[in-house]
Amino acid sequence: MQMNIAQEAAAILTRLRATRPLIHHITNSVSINDCANITLAIGASPVMADDVQEVGEMVAVASALVLNLGMPNPRKIEAMLIAGKRAAQKGIPIVLDPVGVGATKLRMETAKRFFSEMNISVVRGNLAECKALLGFSGGSQGVDCILKEEYKENFAQELAQKLGCVVAITGATDIVASGSQLCRIHNGNSLLTGITGTGCMTTSLVACFSSVNRETFIGAVAGIAAMGVAGEIAEHSLKPGEGLGTFRIRLMDAISNMKQETLLNRMKIS
Amino acid sequence: MQMNIAQEAAAILTRLRATRPLIHHITNSVSINDCANITLAIGASPVMADDVQEVGEMVAVASALVLNLGMPNPRKIEAMLIAGKRAAQKGIPIVLDPVGVGATKLRMETAKRFFSEMNISVVRGNLAECKALLGFSGGSQGVDCILKEEYKENFAQELAQKLGCVVAITGATDIVASGSQLCRIHNGNSLLTGITGTGCMTTSLVACFSSVNRETFIGAVAGIAAMGVAGEIAEHSLKPGEGLGTFRIRLMDAISNMKQETLLNRMKIS
Amino acid sequence: MQMNIAQEAAAILTRLRATRPLIHHITNSVSINDCANITLAIGASPVMADDVQEVGEMVAVASALVLNLGMPNPRKIEAMLIAGKRAAQKGIPIVLDPVGVGATKLRMETAKRFFSEMNISVVRGNLAECKALLGFSGGSQGVDCILKEEYKENFAQELAQKLGCVVAITGATDIVASGSQLCRIHNGNSLLTGITGTGCMTTSLVACFSSVNRETFIGAVAGIAAMGVAGEIAEHSLKPGEGLGTFRIRLMDAISNMKQETLLNRMKIS
Repeated sequence: MQMNIAQEAAAILTRLRATRPLIHHITNSVSINDCANITLAIGASPVMADDVQEVGEMVAVASALVLNLGMPNPRKIEAMLIAGKRAAQKGIPIVLDPVGVGATKLRMETAKRFFSEMNISVVRGNLAECKALLGFSGGSQGVDCILKEEYKENFAQELAQKLGCVVAITGATDIVASGSQLCRIHNGNSLLTGITGTGCMTTSLVACFSSVNRETFIGAVAGIAAMGVAGEIAEHSLKPGEGLGTFRIRLMDAISNMKQETLLNRMKIS
Repeated sequence: MQMNIAQEAAAILTRLRATRPLIHHITNSVSINDCANITLAIGASPVMADDVQEVGEMVAVASALVLNLGMPNPRKIEAMLIAGKRAAQKGIPIVLDPVGVGATKLRMETAKRFFSEMNISVVRGNLAECKALLGFSGGSQGVDCILKEEYKENFAQELAQKLGCVVAITGATDIVASGSQLCRIHNGNSLLTGITGTGCMTTSLVACFSSVNRETFIGAVAGIAAMGVAGEIAEHSLKPGEGLGTFRIRLMDAISNMKQETLLNRMKIS
Repeated sequence: MQMNIAQEAAAILTRLRATRPLIHHITNSVSINDCANITLAIGASPVMADDVQEVGEMVAVASALVLNLGMPNPRKIEAMLIAGKRAAQKGIPIVLDPVGVGATKLRMETAKRFFSEMNISVVRGNLAECKALLGFSGGSQGVDCILKEEYKENFAQELAQKLGCVVAITGATDIVASGSQLCRIHNGNSLLTGITGTGCMTTSLVACFSSVNRETFIGAVAGIAAMGVAGEIAEHSLKPGEGLGTFRIRLMDAISNMKQETLLNRMKIS
C-alpha cells in the first residue's frame, strides 16, 4: 500500500504543474512572501488577499484555501471566516496552519470558531499545536505519553477523528492521519527549523497538492514529502562557508526543480 | 528615434544613482521587502509608510509615489488617496500598479476612485489588468481581438488617451504608450513570472526612473528594460541545479550591478 | 577594559545558542521576515504577534522585546504599549528601533509616549533618528557640531543620560553609550546600507544578545559587532558578478555560522 501512496503523491506533481491551480492564502506577514514563492515554485499560482470586502470573490476562483493563524487580528479572522464559508460552498480544500495556537487565547478561540463554523479539510502543525487543538476538541490533552514517538500516531488518529479532518503533524518524523489511514514521512532535516516560515510553506505545499484532486490525505503526504526532499537536496548542496541564508535559497531551487521521479525516488514513507 | 529613447533611458540610471531619489510606496506585504530592496539596488531610497496619519508627511519629501493595489484594505486605500493628493500638489510622478484589478469589486472601485480623485502618471500592469481599466474608462472592454499581439499597441494607446497617462503593459513583449508615443521592449524571460513580486518590482523601477526628470514615458521604458535585462543576466548566470530561488537573488545582483552601458547595449526596443 | 568587553560580548553568543531565548518583535512588514530569520540564525527564537488581544501573553513568555517604529499605525502602537508594560513587569529588555522618528509627527509622538509610559532599555538608531530623540528629551537638538565624528560620543552619552537607557548609534563607526560607559565599534561596511532592513536586523541582534544576561550595554555591543563582522565576511565572499542580492544571503550565512572565536577575533572595538 505504501508504494501506492508514494506513487500517487508523486504523480500529483505533474498534474499540478499542468493545471496551475490558484491557491488563496490568508496568512501572516512574516512568511507571506515565502509562501507565495513556494506556491509558484511548485507550479501553482498564489493569491493573498485578506480584506473582508474581497476575499469571497478571490476564493470563488481558487482551488484551495490556506488559513494561517500566525499574527492574527480581528480583521483577518473575519476575512478567514468569510473565505472559509465560501470555500466550503465551493467544495475546495481548506488547509489550516494553527501557528502557535496554544500560546494565546485569541488563537485558541479562533481555532475553535473555525472548527465550529467551517469544514477544515487538513490541519498541518507541530505536535504542540496539535496537542492544543485536541484540548478544545474534548480529547486527552495533557497526557504526557503522547510526547513519546510511539504514541504520536495514536494521538494523530484520535485528533483526526475528533476534528473530522486530515491531521498532519510535522517533526523529526512527520505523521499524516485521516482517522483511518496513516502515513509516516521520514524525509527532512534540522536545517528546516533554522529558517522562518518552513512550517507555513509546508502548509502551502499541502494546499497545492490537495487542490489537484481534492484528495487531502495524499495531498498532505505529497506536500510534506516535497518539503522534506527539498530540504535534503538543499542541505546536500551546501558548500563550506554557506549557511542558513543559502539553504533557504537552495530550498526554493529544489522545489522549483522537483521532478515526479525525484520526489518518488527520494520519498521515504512507511 | 528609438536610438534616442534607449540612450535617454540608460542615461537616467547615472543621474538616479547620483541623486538617490526617495520613492514612497504604499503596497502589499507580499512584495514589500522585494520592492524596498530593488529600489535600493537601482540606487534610489525606499520608504513604505502606509498610515493615514503620516503618509502626507512622507510624500512631501519623496520624488515619486508608488500605489500598488495588491492586498488592498480600506485603511490603506484611504492612505493612498491622501498620498496621491499630496503627490499631485508636489508634482511628483504617481505610478499605479493595478494588481488583480479585474478580480474584485473593491479593486475596481478603488482604481476608479484613484483616476477620478488624483492624477495618475503611469499605469504598469499586465494585459488583463489593463483591459479591466479600459472597462471603467468607457473603452471597448471585452473586445477579444486585443488579445492578439498586433492589436495590443492600439489598445495601449487608446487606454493611455482615455486615462490621460502613460500605460505600460508588460508581457512577452512589453509596450509603453503615452497616447502619442509608443515603445516596445523585447527583453525579459519567462522565469520572471516564476517568482512573486516581479511585476511590483518593475513598477518600483518605473517610479525610480520616472522620478529623476519627472519624465514618465522614458522612465517607464527604462524601468521595464532594466528589469528585462536583469532577468536575462540572472537567467544566463544559472548553473545546473539552480532554480527560482537563485534566479531571484541573481536578479537583485544584476539590478545592483547594472551599468548605463549594459542597459544601453542590452536594451532591445523598437 | 576593551578586551573584557569584547570577550564578554563574544561569550554571550555561546550562551545564547544554548538557551534559545524567545524574542518578541512588534515591527514593520518590510523587514519582518529578515528579522525573524536573523533571530533564528543567531540562535534565538522569534515571535512577531502584533495584536492588542495577544501581545501580552506572548511577551509573558519572551526574554526580550523589540519595538520597531517602521510603518507605525494606531493598532500596532497600542499593541506596543501593552507589550512594553508587560515587558517592564517581567524585567526583560525592551529594545527600541526609532525608524525614521524625525520624519513624521506620528513617530515623534509615539516615541515620546514610549519613553514616558515604559522603561526602554536600549535605543538602536542612526544619528538622525537619535538627534530627533534628543529633541523631545529636552536636549540640544539642532546643534550642528554633533555631526562631527568627535562630538558624536558626547552626544550619545548625553542622550543616554537624558533617556535613561543605553544608546547605540550605528554609522561608519558605531557608538554604544550607557551614560557612563562608552564603546566604539569599527566593523561593518557600506554594503550594509545597500539592502533594506539591516538596521532592523541589527536591532533584533541587540535584543537577542541583551536577553541572555539582561545586560544591555554589552548586549548592544555584541549585536552590533556581530552584524558588522557578518557584513565583512559577506562582502569578502562576493565573487565578480555577484551583488546586493547575494550579499544579503551571505550576511545571513555569516550570522548562522558565526562562532564565538570569530566574533572575538574580528571584533574591532575601542
